[in-house]
Amino acid sequence: MKKILVLGAGRSTYSLINYLLEQAGQRQWKVRVGDHSLAMAEEKCGAHELGEPFRFDVNDEAQQRKEIAAADLVISMLPAAFHPLVAQRCIEYGVNMVTASYVAPEMRTLEQQAREKGILILNECGLDPGIDHMSAMKVIDQVRENGGELTAFETFTGGLLAPGKDENPWEYKFTWNPRNVVLAGQGIVKFVQQNKYKYIPYHKLFRRTEQVYVPGHGYFEGYANRDSLKYLDVYGLQGIKTLYRGTFRRPGFCRAWDVFVQLGATDDSYLVEGVAQMTHRDFINSFLSYNPHDSVELKLAHYLGLDLEGPEMHRLKWIGMFDQTRIGLEKGTPAQILEHILKKKWTLKEEDRDMIVMWHKFEYLEEGKEKEIHSTLVAVGDDPVNTAMSKTVGLPVGIAAKLLLEGKINEKGVHIPIKREIYDPILQELSTLGFEMIEEHKK
Amino acid sequence: MKKILVLGAGRSTYSLINYLLEQAGQRQWKVRVGDHSLAMAEEKCGAHELGEPFRFDVNDEAQQRKEIAAADLVISMLPAAFHPLVAQRCIEYGVNMVTASYVAPEMRTLEQQAREKGILILNECGLDPGIDHMSAMKVIDQVRENGGELTAFETFTGGLLAPGKDENPWEYKFTWNPRNVVLAGQGIVKFVQQNKYKYIPYHKLFRRTEQVYVPGHGYFEGYANRDSLKYLDVYGLQGIKTLYRGTFRRPGFCRAWDVFVQLGATDDSYLVEGVAQMTHRDFINSFLSYNPHDSVELKLAHYLGLDLEGPEMHRLKWIGMFDQTRIGLEKGTPAQILEHILKKKWTLKEEDRDMIVMWHKFEYLEEGKEKEIHSTLVAVGDDPVNTAMSKTVGLPVGIAAKLLLEGKINEKGVHIPIKREIYDPILQELSTLGFEMIEEHKK
Repeated sequence: MKKILVLGAGRSTYSLINYLLEQAGQRQWKVRVGDHSLAMAEEKCGAHELGEPFRFDVNDEAQQRKEIAAADLVISMLPAAFHPLVAQRCIEYGVNMVTASYVAPEMRTLEQQAREKGILILNECGLDPGIDHMSAMKVIDQVRENGGELTAFETFTGGLLAPGKDENPWEYKFTWNPRNVVLAGQGIVKFVQQNKYKYIPYHKLFRRTEQVYVPGHGYFEGYANRDSLKYLDVYGLQGIKTLYRGTFRRPGFCRAWDVFVQLGATDDSYLVEGVAQMTHRDFINSFLSYNPHDSVELKLAHYLGLDLEGPEMHRLKWIGMFDQTRIGLEKGTPAQILEHILKKKWTLKEEDRDMIVMWHKFEYLEEGKEKEIHSTLVAVGDDPVNTAMSKTVGLPVGIAAKLLLEGKINEKGVHIPIKREIYDPILQELSTLGFEMIEEHKK
Repeated sequence: MKKILVLGAGRSTYSLINYLLEQAGQRQWKVRVGDHSLAMAEEKCGAHELGEPFRFDVNDEAQQRKEIAAADLVISMLPAAFHPLVAQRCIEYGVNMVTASYVAPEMRTLEQQAREKGILILNECGLDPGIDHMSAMKVIDQVRENGGELTAFETFTGGLLAPGKDENPWEYKFTWNPRNVVLAGQGIVKFVQQNKYKYIPYHKLFRRTEQVYVPGHGYFEGYANRDSLKYLDVYGLQGIKTLYRGTFRRPGFCRAWDVFVQLGATDDSYLVEGVAQMTHRDFINSFLSYNPHDSVELKLAHYLGLDLEGPEMHRLKWIGMFDQTRIGLEKGTPAQILEHILKKKWTLKEEDRDMIVMWHKFEYLEEGKEKEIHSTLVAVGDDPVNTAMSKTVGLPVGIAAKLLLEGKINEKGVHIPIKREIYDPILQELSTLGFEMIEEHKK
């Protein structure tokens, strides 16, 4: 009986734990699921006899050590800040580990120790980061094998709402951590285009969008995602002329979201005064000039150069930003307040389906000819719990866990899934589960 | 013979050290001036027999202790981050201390220790902060004594260029730490207007300006300065309807400066790639979309909605932002690069005179009547070394030092000059030296 220890049972672990439990009988696994909330862990395990929900406190060192020492494999779905701590224990006890999170600098420093102990700490093995790496490296490796030279790589991923009957003009709801959605894009954005390094500050990010057409699904709006330059090394693309990573939204979303950015309503650095008494409308007004005679709507529209009846104001009205409704928080930063207001409307309902769209564009030279490949993944959730997000984040983690337990991955150290040995079997199984990148040769 | 120890002999210490040396003979002082650069310390002391320049390394604990233990009073003109360290030593050896810098939270924690040791650590005793506090408190105390109730307080200070023959369209040059000018305004701005709390993010700050007319000197443009709300407590103004602290520039400056803010050229958080090979023009282009067929000028004007021949573009051309001139740095953040480019034109020449403008507006109710006082200080420098900035920062520090050495200030603990015992004699002497706030009753 092999023991898989899953730490953290939040929203995105539904499909992961389901997958592990489905395999558990046949493969003789026990799946221990620990969360700060026992109810969360129990809910994810259901009544499955091989699932063992328990209350887990990451700050309880004794419990941490006991659980990790007894495990054959650890999957950490805790908040990313805890991964290095869990990784250190995994090294101590010689247990392999999988996460879906970005490799933090602190995690990278564990490389040597993990290697010496003979274990693998596999990170960035979810959707984005995760499937994006794997599916990109598959094409990049193909191009190289055929003697081609990559000249441009652009990649976008979006966690969106599937087209439905809802008249929500944002065509968006929260399908993963709402806080991360509100803070998305803060910090500097860097990329390289035709050998020119380009920098976009946060307050311009949502106006510097790209329009991308995905056949069968229409147009999407992409904005640049953090530091693309670090992928020059990760993907081995030094010398490539264009490298751009981005995030997809539905057309019109970014201009409307930019209103919050311009106002300063996504700032997470200070506490707003008097939140308990504030309404949505007061919140918006706190970023506008004082003038008792003008409406908040007119002041906002004038301040940011919006049409009073235009698409941005329409979205803001729909989401209730001008309502005289109490926010319902005792205190908070602008970002926390905004998140709280948005959640009132942007929470998935029974009839809502989420949707994942990932799109890569590769340009390369092969035998002197310019060639181009597009690679697309579209996935729609089953319901508001079995979301496409939960599946595309959880299944690659689950598959990686299975491969590790079966001894089919031999890498050691701190890694992300960019080696063929790792990405090939994961992508293959994902495709049998209905998550396949469609590759199209454009030239 | 009393020993004054001046730590740091940077640009702004010229007038301070001059003042101390002028008084030294008659009052039997020795003035020891320590700087990392012996040449700087020597230059400030000139050939004065009571001045003792020496090389000082703040990180050399033995030297630090020896010098402070031997002093009767310490003036720290070091970078602000070192003040708490110096203050700790002053407490150990029971020596009074004066600075011109903001009280950092770390400094505030020394209050109890300073009080127990019976010493005064007087901070914010320069121009802004400094003369602004003193001159404001003088009026605020007067209003209160007459039974008035303050309803609004607005205050602006600017370190500017005096009108001259230079056709510099910015009407501005660096007259204090250029790095601080480039970074000015970063972080959140808070103030209260008619009992409404207002917040301005950095990327909107230079568009939310106020126009202020100062009789005899014309119009100035003010932008809000950091967190005005903390002065509610400092000045004892809880319940006031409007409190706004700002910075003055010449009209048109802020819109042009906003171009750098919008581009992200004042960002100090990351290193730009390939700086050694870059020209001024390349620097600007790195913030603009890639397009090989359009000029940098047109791309910029279009991006930020500027007239191609308008006042902002004129200022940018004058300062050489579009020139194919090498930047002349090996590496740097955008803010460091911008500072380096601006210094090429914004450095005071022999014929340039700097200018300080400080302006307060007080609104109050007295016996049911609305009243208003304006209080103005304008000072022009003698030459590019004896600047108005150097005098207005250095003289209050020097005067405070003198008062302390003569036992005329009895406060103990960590303070700023808002008590009458401190501000009254300082303002009086400043006025005999030609730096007087002119108060005008408007209603």
